[in-house]
Amino acid sequence: MAVGGVLDGFPSGVSINFDFVKSELGRRRGAAEKGSTTRQETDEVEWLSGLLDGVTLGTPIAFALHNIDCRSVDYDMLRSCYRPGHADYTYQARYGVRDFRGGGRASARETAARVVAGALSKQWLMEQRGISVVSSYRLGGSQTGNVGGVVSCTIQGVRAGVGSPVFGKLNALLSAAEMTIPSAIGFEMGAGFESIHMSGKQFADAWEQRSDVATVGTVTNHCGGIQGGISNGMPIEFRVAFHPVTTQPDGMDCLTDKGEIQRVVSGGRHDLCQVPRACVIVEAMAAMVLMDCLL
Amino acid sequence: MAVGGVLDGFPSGVSINFDFVKSELGRRRGAAEKGSTTRQETDEVEWLSGLLDGVTLGTPIAFALHNIDCRSVDYDMLRSCYRPGHADYTYQARYGVRDFRGGGRASARETAARVVAGALSKQWLMEQRGISVVSSYRLGGSQTGNVGGVVSCTIQGVRAGVGSPVFGKLNALLSAAEMTIPSAIGFEMGAGFESIHMSGKQFADAWEQRSDVATVGTVTNHCGGIQGGISNGMPIEFRVAFHPVTTQPDGMDCLTDKGEIQRVVSGGRHDLCQVPRACVIVEAMAAMVLMDCLL
Amino acid sequence: MAVGGVLDGFPSGVSINFDFVKSELGRRRGAAEKGSTTRQETDEVEWLSGLLDGVTLGTPIAFALHNIDCRSVDYDMLRSCYRPGHADYTYQARYGVRDFRGGGRASARETAARVVAGALSKQWLMEQRGISVVSSYRLGGSQTGNVGGVVSCTIQGVRAGVGSPVFGKLNALLSAAEMTIPSAIGFEMGAGFESIHMSGKQFADAWEQRSDVATVGTVTNHCGGIQGGISNGMPIEFRVAFHPVTTQPDGMDCLTDKGEIQRVVSGGRHDLCQVPRACVIVEAMAAMVLMDCLL
Amino acid sequence: MAVGGVLDGFPSGVSINFDFVKSELGRRRGAAEKGSTTRQETDEVEWLSGLLDGVTLGTPIAFALHNIDCRSVDYDMLRSCYRPGHADYTYQARYGVRDFRGGGRASARETAARVVAGALSKQWLMEQRGISVVSSYRLGGSQTGNVGGVVSCTIQGVRAGVGSPVFGKLNALLSAAEMTIPSAIGFEMGAGFESIHMSGKQFADAWEQRSDVATVGTVTNHCGGIQGGISNGMPIEFRVAFHPVTTQPDGMDCLTDKGEIQRVVSGGRHDLCQVPRACVIVEAMAAMVLMDCLL
Repeated sequence: MAVGGVLDGFPSGVSINFDFVKSELGRRRGAAEKGSTTRQETDEVEWLSGLLDGVTLGTPIAFALHNIDCRSVDYDMLRSCYRPGHADYTYQARYGVRDFRGGGRASARETAARVVAGALSKQWLMEQRGISVVSSYRLGGSQTGNVGGVVSCTIQGVRAGVGSPVFGKLNALLSAAEMTIPSAIGFEMGAGFESIHMSGKQFADAWEQRSDVATVGTVTNHCGGIQGGISNGMPIEFRVAFHPVTTQPDGMDCLTDKGEIQRVVSGGRHDLCQVPRACVIVEAMAAMVLMDCLL
Repeated sequence: MAVGGVLDGFPSGVSINFDFVKSELGRRRGAAEKGSTTRQETDEVEWLSGLLDGVTLGTPIAFALHNIDCRSVDYDMLRSCYRPGHADYTYQARYGVRDFRGGGRASARETAARVVAGALSKQWLMEQRGISVVSSYRLGGSQTGNVGGVVSCTIQGVRAGVGSPVFGKLNALLSAAEMTIPSAIGFEMGAGFESIHMSGKQFADAWEQRSDVATVGTVTNHCGGIQGGISNGMPIEFRVAFHPVTTQPDGMDCLTDKGEIQRVVSGGRHDLCQVPRACVIVEAMAAMVLMDCLL
Repeated sequence: MAVGGVLDGFPSGVSINFDFVKSELGRRRGAAEKGSTTRQETDEVEWLSGLLDGVTLGTPIAFALHNIDCRSVDYDMLRSCYRPGHADYTYQARYGVRDFRGGGRASARETAARVVAGALSKQWLMEQRGISVVSSYRLGGSQTGNVGGVVSCTIQGVRAGVGSPVFGKLNALLSAAEMTIPSAIGFEMGAGFESIHMSGKQFADAWEQRSDVATVGTVTNHCGGIQGGISNGMPIEFRVAFHPVTTQPDGMDCLTDKGEIQRVVSGGRHDLCQVPRACVIVEAMAAMVLMDCLL
Repeated sequence: MAVGGVLDGFPSGVSINFDFVKSELGRRRGAAEKGSTTRQETDEVEWLSGLLDGVTLGTPIAFALHNIDCRSVDYDMLRSCYRPGHADYTYQARYGVRDFRGGGRASARETAARVVAGALSKQWLMEQRGISVVSSYRLGGSQTGNVGGVVSCTIQGVRAGVGSPVFGKLNALLSAAEMTIPSAIGFEMGAGFESIHMSGKQFADAWEQRSDVATVGTVTNHCGGIQGGISNGMPIEFRVAFHPVTTQPDGMDCLTDKGEIQRVVSGGRHDLCQVPRACVIVEAMAAMVLMDCLL
């Protein structure tokens, strides 16, 4: 089995920067990060369609990444067990069958496909529109084990007028996209949850006087660069909260398909903290949303 | 002009509870709430299609709500002014033209249509699936003017197995729907942003042993009832943060279409705090998302 | 009840030509046509949203047409009867309930909404892109009663390169749109069904030599202006076949909901031949498809 | 490069009949058919996701078919030439770049992916709903070369009530799907274009009296089993017209990208008549549409 995806609607005539794709996949794999797994994943992308001599054809771009080190034996004990904090049970309830091995859709490996698509989007945004998508993270404060964290993302260079009212709001599209990332548990724009403690006068970003409307701006950016669902020309700023990794290397009390609790020590290798690796995924989702809105 | 909407795919044979629709619209209008406007809005719904003798036909249900007190004169000074904290400027940038009167799509009046649709969804969820959607709110702590707040919403009675992996995650759908509400600025599931300070062991909701798998449950509900994008049978719990009302009754420094700052005192009537009224809208959006997933 | 619709995505800043809308509705009503009904339908359009002083705002344009002469008594006998050649039985099977009066969605009255939307699209196509959509008809040859016919439609002014390969083919989109018209029973591009008798050499439209590629053309137009799902710059030509009107003014042997055959003489007024009136609807659907592809 | 696809929404728990997939691909390749090419195509399907031990997981099923005999040298002369009756020119106009080799999206090879998806749909329809999809063909009458033809398709076992009114009509969905097949140039339901010569009384399919409404039927089936966009329980019958193959083995007068006419003899191998091979593709598209409507 493999992970992969299909990009429909990507413009023609773009010369793909394969080194950038590889570099972004490297950020996701986080080889240099402390606490990341030693799992052998290959970052080799097989391009199946949509390219001719490395140039996009305008037709769907299909690609796949194959696992080179898929030790399914690690996962055998999970055949009849539902781990706490995982999607084993909900997949079983949804489909009546599930891929109990590591290659399932709830696997973090799935995010590699997002990073590939995101890399193409980021390249297009920068080259065609001068738009950058960057992020940083901070970890939570637990002293008792692995932790979660928050990824802050900033999109710069978006002109005013991107997004749509009511059900196509740019903030809503960003929220939906980011909340599809495994372990994402919260999303906020600009001042976010803190803004509930502000007065309306404090919150409303004051206009800065300029002679040229084209370069209009605000003194603060509490709204995160989006008003009424549409970009206002200021940097778009949002944060995504990630809960801690739920896999416990020293074993977990699982629910069996007979309704009993059973202790399981999984041999699979898993991250202690996925937040640093999440940055490139957060950026990828934002880049895809923005490119969709601009096309 | 009017607000309204079209519900496509609503099941046939449902006898609409018009009193419940009226009652939900009353919650939104918040006549009894302190700080709400005295604006005369009619809650009379004109049903345009999809019903026969009050029973749904399975075909699209179109409806409209007309304003009875539309004093457009109040808004004339907004023709060439962009208020801070409003969508005047972004609409202008997006479309090159905008409805500067109060009836625009960025108006809170738009949410009346959501409430009508939500009332129909809530009726169906309760009668056909025994699912309830309830919410409560808390306000922020500013002492200097109007404030924002957080609406907590709980959906009870959803069986395990609702939602889809990857891009159709139930939490992502809920997040997108809630973030389309005017003034919504943050969304979180279960333990939300607080969960970043927990260890993985703390966060992972432990299974409760039961003899019957059908009634499986967890001791805590940090994930908010959704795992891997799919409901796990526990209550679905989320929160939506709303920023404070940005309209200042004593005037605002607006940006004119000539790039200058001009003080404007708007005669329109506006809420001091919209959070109490937001509850019924938060519930409406959740109900629609859930009904969509169940159909 | 009313018919109506919502146009989402219509560009902003278009000054609607209401006289043209009225004129197109008049073509549909076909007051001057021999064999058309004397039914009193109003062509008054109520514009519910999306316009300011007759100019489009870029936001959804909702509109409704109300019936002024809805004599529902005519239809009472249809409550438990399924007419031959009508959708009474299939609606009942689909929804378990149906609007047995004349206002149901299978009513030809529904097409008035298509004409309104089509008029806006045609105005935009002509003014913004210089594209015209025209049609003519021929009737079938039956001597024993009302007949069906074929509407031939030509779209001129479409540049090469409009449409998409595989599942977004322009011919497929046109076919789908036209086949949704009540009584449409066949669709063909260019040489259509006749082309099966041609050799490949005859069918393949030969290029005409030109010095300027921009004005490239073909000697014949057997493919109807679309190749591989994409326009080639020649006129787009297709035909839609309509079966005869199935309502018999002197009575019909209906199936009752008890499984018996019962003769019913309906007092409702119906066309003897709808083909002349269908022209404006065929054009409307084509205009909407094309505008969608160009936006 | 490869052809392939992704099936989203296919039910879980289906044990794929790989022999049937292979058999359907064999029908498409038409090895035994007179006039078919000797091109070496492999029918080996690489399943990339969505299966566990040959059983569907409910998650997207991705698959690819690789070419084993891709002699791109044959196509080099097509780099700057647009063949008559082909999509070379329109692809170039649409995207500004195109895959001039045989593997482009306008290649008939693309239909192999449709056949794979159709085979899965047909298996599900038969096993889960007892629905069969069969077809036959007749060729046109040209004596001067290769010819086109008509494929007649019949779907049996569909209960009354499948499909939706107005824009979701089952006949429109079928038409759209079939018209996406390369070389399809016409579509008709039931009596089709011939029905224009009938009177309304002749055309309207008379009910057959039965004691049990559940087995209601009509004496004739001029409407092709669909009324008002919804199935009526009779067999669904439609026909698809295919124009003749436009590739001429003895050379074609092509348009060059300089606007000149140039004779090109293509070394690629192509069918003389694709109609017999089209049957399995027509069935595949119908099966997918029907399965979509039933899920």
